[in-house]
Amino acid sequence: MATDIFAKRALLPDGWARNIQVRMVEGRITSISQTKDARQAPAEAVRVDILLPALANLHSHAFQRAMAGMTETRGPGEQDSFWTWRRLMYRFLERLDPAQVEAIAAQVYVEMLEAGYASVGEFHYLHHGPGGVSYDDPAEMSVRIAAAAAKTGIGITHLPVLYAQGGSDGRALAGGQLRFGTDLDGFADLTDRAAAAITTVGPDAKTGVAPHSLRAVGVEALTAVQSLRADAPIHMHIAEQRAEVVEILGTHGATPVKWLLEIMDVDTRWCLIHATHMDRAETEGLARSGAVAGLCPITEANLGDGIFNGASYLAADGRLGVGSDSNVRIALAEELRTLENGQRLQGKARAVLAGPEASTGRTLYGAALAGGAQALGRASGAIEEGIWADLVALDGDALALAGLDGDALLDGWIFAGDDTIVKDVWSAGRHVVRDGRHIARDRIEAAYRSAITDLRAEL
Amino acid sequence: MATDIFAKRALLPDGWARNIQVRMVEGRITSISQTKDARQAPAEAVRVDILLPALANLHSHAFQRAMAGMTETRGPGEQDSFWTWRRLMYRFLERLDPAQVEAIAAQVYVEMLEAGYASVGEFHYLHHGPGGVSYDDPAEMSVRIAAAAAKTGIGITHLPVLYAQGGSDGRALAGGQLRFGTDLDGFADLTDRAAAAITTVGPDAKTGVAPHSLRAVGVEALTAVQSLRADAPIHMHIAEQRAEVVEILGTHGATPVKWLLEIMDVDTRWCLIHATHMDRAETEGLARSGAVAGLCPITEANLGDGIFNGASYLAADGRLGVGSDSNVRIALAEELRTLENGQRLQGKARAVLAGPEASTGRTLYGAALAGGAQALGRASGAIEEGIWADLVALDGDALALAGLDGDALLDGWIFAGDDTIVKDVWSAGRHVVRDGRHIARDRIEAAYRSAITDLRAEL
Repeated sequence: MATDIFAKRALLPDGWARNIQVRMVEGRITSISQTKDARQAPAEAVRVDILLPALANLHSHAFQRAMAGMTETRGPGEQDSFWTWRRLMYRFLERLDPAQVEAIAAQVYVEMLEAGYASVGEFHYLHHGPGGVSYDDPAEMSVRIAAAAAKTGIGITHLPVLYAQGGSDGRALAGGQLRFGTDLDGFADLTDRAAAAITTVGPDAKTGVAPHSLRAVGVEALTAVQSLRADAPIHMHIAEQRAEVVEILGTHGATPVKWLLEIMDVDTRWCLIHATHMDRAETEGLARSGAVAGLCPITEANLGDGIFNGASYLAADGRLGVGSDSNVRIALAEELRTLENGQRLQGKARAVLAGPEASTGRTLYGAALAGGAQALGRASGAIEEGIWADLVALDGDALALAGLDGDALLDGWIFAGDDTIVKDVWSAGRHVVRDGRHIARDRIEAAYRSAITDLRAEL
Repeated sequence: MATDIFAKRALLPDGWARNIQVRMVEGRITSISQTKDARQAPAEAVRVDILLPALANLHSHAFQRAMAGMTETRGPGEQDSFWTWRRLMYRFLERLDPAQVEAIAAQVYVEMLEAGYASVGEFHYLHHGPGGVSYDDPAEMSVRIAAAAAKTGIGITHLPVLYAQGGSDGRALAGGQLRFGTDLDGFADLTDRAAAAITTVGPDAKTGVAPHSLRAVGVEALTAVQSLRADAPIHMHIAEQRAEVVEILGTHGATPVKWLLEIMDVDTRWCLIHATHMDRAETEGLARSGAVAGLCPITEANLGDGIFNGASYLAADGRLGVGSDSNVRIALAEELRTLENGQRLQGKARAVLAGPEASTGRTLYGAALAGGAQALGRASGAIEEGIWADLVALDGDALALAGLDGDALLDGWIFAGDDTIVKDVWSAGRHVVRDGRHIARDRIEAAYRSAITDLRAEL
């Protein structure tokens, strides 16, 4: 059955247009047409003010949302750092059960959709029970993630994680890490089972693979993982923290991005998460590879990681997208704003990531659309026939957009506004956010509140 | 007449407490008592979940809100910078009239109150009509600011600005600057008239003085301004942009903060806005002076100014507060989060501004309470008898606060939440935000929308 959207203003591949009718059939855009005015739109069309292709959120660890607001203290007698945060994560890991993971993920996906994201790359490493005991179904946790995606209608690219060792020296897993660990055979089995569960979510759902990092996966395993699922996305954390850069340099005699580019055929299947610490050659090498740099600016600021070298990377035609990672804040406009603001503070300049022709907001949003779609292996990211109808409608009456038009609408949203401007979201044609609220929010929020209150009380 | 608030949890000077009753008479807190439980609270008390002293927003240029979202492009053929932004501001200045300034300021103050601020320091330099023609009342624009404050109930410290020259070399004013300019006699007259208008706003309203910057005010004028209003706050922009640091170094042979500390008796009356670029001696000198560093993290990021040296400054017991400056975003939690996040990205660490005992959110909020109150010369910043009842109540049912208690409530608000958590705000006892909305929002927003749409259409 066809459904139609009628938009007063829409961002099409060749620019802004007025009075645009978008037809969707089975989740895909099947036609885009322009009418003389609103009266010619079909009576049953959903009418919106400003229609944009919706972003993919390319990097999420849904369960980490449970920790939001609980890790902003300094460890006793120490200069707090990333590693203190990591210890609290491990304390959570002694408790989290599958039902809690499903409840948290569902709330996280509701909030992503309400923020204007249509899809998510779930980088999923919490496979087993406490102590590393496998569930009856080794892919139990992936099944829970699939259930959360199905409940919320978000487009998912599930990324089961291979976490094979406790450090780049090949030491064994210990403590909280035991919940993540698999050997290669176990990982292949788990990924097959996860893919079967994910397939039931919807025709647009996908499964990729995620070797966790150069700390957690050795060269041999990395090579094996690459050929595990032909043509599927491959995501990996890289060069997030300086300590990690020092560790990889010590083990392999090269910094992480340099080392990875040497040993693997990094291409458009790859998404390198963070890539914060790169020298000029690494920046240009990553750009040339065609891979996506998966930036998570809010989390990277919260964790004190550092600032990505955006200006050089875009100058070398590098591809990028954004992810909400730890989900400490799920806020699309703020995510993009934080990315650009970091560049400004670093470069002591304005509009650093703006193109020569387009505004900063338009350039950033366009880059994140293309990079997000590529990273998720998802035919989306444009209002274009044949691809998934991942769409977001903004409120033309929002105060932050008053008197603005064209690219300035994106600037107004990203730099002066917030996600309350988002009115409607479609994910592969599923109209799950209406008038700013997810259609199943109340039920999902109640389950989340109960899970989170229990979890936090136990700490 | 006495009115009462009953709070389930409240942040008192010696820490968190439960079942707290706060009595207000004529805008001041007159008693604070603890009851055994909620049943003993007076029936007519306003019941709230979490009660905090409300922050002062120590630096605002209300009219700049009109530009939000319009300046995120790069100038043709140039690396955009602060100075491109400044040119657009001057284009606005060819158009803005007093009624528009009042409409914009009223909306800005509504949003500040809704964000959880109880008071504002309005750094006011737009005195005259286009071309520098004085209005019939030379303080016309201050009268408009007073009217906006009165309409909204915000606590105001009005800071008329002395803008005497076009650069630190003493050159004459030109172009858009003509609307700002006064000589010393004119400034004294304007300030007296402004103070008379501000006095009518409320018993808590104040007038200070603001020599604009070392670029716009010479040494002689600076000295004269300091003695113009005994005991009143003195605010000044300083060391925001590198170009400014270079200019002052060229003119006076010293960087701005160093130069100011040499020539003036900078003490607790002073608030130095930005103070972004300081070496170690300047950082320590400013801390020793007892003045407040007025930080505007969102604006400073948007303008690419740079990152304040927060860790060294707090280590030297420096005082700080926050302001929304350009008002591109009026967002209290985000303002504090942006301050800390900048420190984290700079220092590659977490919880940089946290105290040894308190969490980051508690430390930041506490510092901004004390610094904001001092900078505005306003007896406020604590739930304490005898001072103005500037109070904010948070929604205990907010999802971002679920399962949190004590200092973590502030961390949850600042790092994981946003200002939708704010339920009620009192400014000197005026209960102007109820259930998250300002009591006069609809009327004020309509006037703002009309003003902004007209203004932007003319550009």
